[in-house]
Amino acid sequence: MPDPHLEALLSCLRFPSVSTDPDHRADVRACASWLVGQLSDGGFQATLHETPGHPVIIAKGPFQPGRPRVVIYGHYDVQPADPIELWTKTPDPFSPVIIDEVIYARGATDNKGQLMAHLRGALALLAAERDLPVNLTFLFEGEEEVGSPSLAPFLHQHRDELACDVIAVSDTGMVAPGLGTLTYGLRGIAAIELTVHGPAQDLHSGVWGGTVRNPASALSHLLASLHQPDGSIAVEGFYEGVTPLASWEREAWAKLPGGDADTLALTGSSELFGEPGYSALERRWARPTAEINGLTSGFQGKGSKTIIPAKASAKLTFRLVPGQDPDHIQQLVINHFQRYLPSGLSLELHAGHTGSPYQLDPHGPFGKAAQLALADTFSQPPALIREGGSIPIVQSFREILGVDTLLLGLALPDCNIHAPDENFPVANFNAGIQLHANLLRRIAQV
Amino acid sequence: MPDPHLEALLSCLRFPSVSTDPDHRADVRACASWLVGQLSDGGFQATLHETPGHPVIIAKGPFQPGRPRVVIYGHYDVQPADPIELWTKTPDPFSPVIIDEVIYARGATDNKGQLMAHLRGALALLAAERDLPVNLTFLFEGEEEVGSPSLAPFLHQHRDELACDVIAVSDTGMVAPGLGTLTYGLRGIAAIELTVHGPAQDLHSGVWGGTVRNPASALSHLLASLHQPDGSIAVEGFYEGVTPLASWEREAWAKLPGGDADTLALTGSSELFGEPGYSALERRWARPTAEINGLTSGFQGKGSKTIIPAKASAKLTFRLVPGQDPDHIQQLVINHFQRYLPSGLSLELHAGHTGSPYQLDPHGPFGKAAQLALADTFSQPPALIREGGSIPIVQSFREILGVDTLLLGLALPDCNIHAPDENFPVANFNAGIQLHANLLRRIAQV
Repeated sequence: MPDPHLEALLSCLRFPSVSTDPDHRADVRACASWLVGQLSDGGFQATLHETPGHPVIIAKGPFQPGRPRVVIYGHYDVQPADPIELWTKTPDPFSPVIIDEVIYARGATDNKGQLMAHLRGALALLAAERDLPVNLTFLFEGEEEVGSPSLAPFLHQHRDELACDVIAVSDTGMVAPGLGTLTYGLRGIAAIELTVHGPAQDLHSGVWGGTVRNPASALSHLLASLHQPDGSIAVEGFYEGVTPLASWEREAWAKLPGGDADTLALTGSSELFGEPGYSALERRWARPTAEINGLTSGFQGKGSKTIIPAKASAKLTFRLVPGQDPDHIQQLVINHFQRYLPSGLSLELHAGHTGSPYQLDPHGPFGKAAQLALADTFSQPPALIREGGSIPIVQSFREILGVDTLLLGLALPDCNIHAPDENFPVANFNAGIQLHANLLRRIAQV
Repeated sequence: MPDPHLEALLSCLRFPSVSTDPDHRADVRACASWLVGQLSDGGFQATLHETPGHPVIIAKGPFQPGRPRVVIYGHYDVQPADPIELWTKTPDPFSPVIIDEVIYARGATDNKGQLMAHLRGALALLAAERDLPVNLTFLFEGEEEVGSPSLAPFLHQHRDELACDVIAVSDTGMVAPGLGTLTYGLRGIAAIELTVHGPAQDLHSGVWGGTVRNPASALSHLLASLHQPDGSIAVEGFYEGVTPLASWEREAWAKLPGGDADTLALTGSSELFGEPGYSALERRWARPTAEINGLTSGFQGKGSKTIIPAKASAKLTFRLVPGQDPDHIQQLVINHFQRYLPSGLSLELHAGHTGSPYQLDPHGPFGKAAQLALADTFSQPPALIREGGSIPIVQSFREILGVDTLLLGLALPDCNIHAPDENFPVANFNAGIQLHANLLRRIAQV
């Protein structure tokens, strides 16, 4: 007999809701409309709200005065699926397949699998008991993968409707299968795109080679200047104000699975590299980074084309930790590139999306409720960790709605989020449905 | 009344004979067949010869024993037209337009305009006089822009048929409009493509950032290591054996147009940059270079994708001068990259096409005949120069056929070869038709 929860998730995964690509705008919207339908049919008051970008959904369950007010956030947009040719389990990342009880599709983990676990958990509770233990509101957006540009204004506009005591989000990881995990810190992000412009047009490298600076060479120099040889970041002022790791964190994390050896295995790398003096987990969760996400210049087709390209560009993102301000870091990086740009070239810089780093007290009342719900679900005490990814809107929830966010992630380290063969175990989906019920129950007891 | 010479050239330019792109294979062949038709209709014995790549054409005019045997070489293949969006004069680089007596199209100068000037010049002579002053053979190939891989074996196989006293080629430049130019030296070339491989697949830069080397960063380091800060090349042994410039060359070139100021204007650059101690002409014609032709890594679409790319690659070409051996230089560069590759990554290196540098005595009998033909055509003594581009097959002509090559180019510095808005003045096309007649006459007098 087909599992209706699983069937619903597979339907959701079939929408190619790639928020960064204008060609998928209608697909993103179709996914939002489908979610509104699911929620309405299940007894929620669900509304699709327009924004300058992709729609936001607010859906409210039964209301009773005096109960804790809980908002559960998720995002229905996904990363691009390319390079599609590297997907090995399904030829189409938007045609999900289940192999050995694991679901393969773009968005399987990030974030549709986790969003749908909460949605299906709530519908199941409501169908069985005709009520929920808290006043529950779902908040689903379609722009998380592009930095949630519309969400902060939306939160301002809908402050009253979204007023709550706590927010819960499942968009982070578990340190190991079956080990419930509360994430109490996230890195922030600052994106920069730079283009080095040289000659007015592509030049024949035989005729002109040797007389003017090659923009691709200059870009290489600029990018090579970002790091010290030891792996630390060479941008002046980059580490100023960074909050050091606490001793208890270093001690607890040293005992966790998913450390140096797992990092090698899961990334398919032969060697670790990074800021000296820190373990892989410490580098991933609590130290800032500078990474090149893409390079583009000149001829990229088959064969050769003997040119000096007119321009060369790179996409960069910096992961930030408590004590760093994304706007300030963007300015430091811009200063760095302007200072190191060789003469005779011009530099075009675009400051992209930003998100502040986040930290929460895991021992407050809602943090404790979350720990209990995780223990209920997974039958062992949860791990307390930080995480390297960025959920910029968590910071917005604190600033605009004035509440903390519980991060109860269900992603495993090998779920390949943002990469080919993204996947989500059916077991995690089912655990998520249970976690939803346990979380509402434990919060109702606060 | 339409000019039949010009109409024929425009027809030739309409073939998108891009030799590097497998998708254009049929177009390259169609262009070759069309040329065979032109030559046959005009009284030549023309044959299309198969090769492992694109066809080679041999066409022979009337034969009389005892006359000098002249081979005129040209290539009917062209560079890719991209970036097509930067062409401003014609929306389709293979739909030629004539604006203010200048022809705009991919291949207008390199090399169809110059090839067709010789072809039409020969057909006109033959139509008018029913004979030619020399035993003329045309040799046209379709792989010059990919390094002529089939031509050397072809020359070996057809040595008897191509036996001759001298070869003439119009595939080089004029230093100024109306100033006939004999090029007595060419730079050689060595191509290398390198790919740095890191993690097994693209990684989420939030989850994993800071723990493994980013291949795009490592590639930037490798490419930045190619040059010293002063613009000279840092590859060990690169300059060993390089033949220094002769004093007479430096003196003569200092008086030529097309120097530093023109280099700035024609490249659209704000500043010159290159090996210290040399003028722009000296750097272009007689000093070796290392240029990046293309960079590719990670996400290149609109928006952002927060990954550590699994790999990063670059296409490079080195221009070489007398005293440098292309195979040896490729090995030195490979050694350089292997030495500087950071640990934890792997390096994939492809040694691409090569061509030896070339030098000829401009004061020998055929060199003098060429100077006279240029003086006849342009009514002033020609300039004697070297050129920065590479025509690797000129070296093959010397090695396999045992003869020198006269380089009588008709390209102006602003003809934009290999670039958007490639163009060829109608006046240069017509001068080329005259030059053909003068050259055959002067060689007949040797």
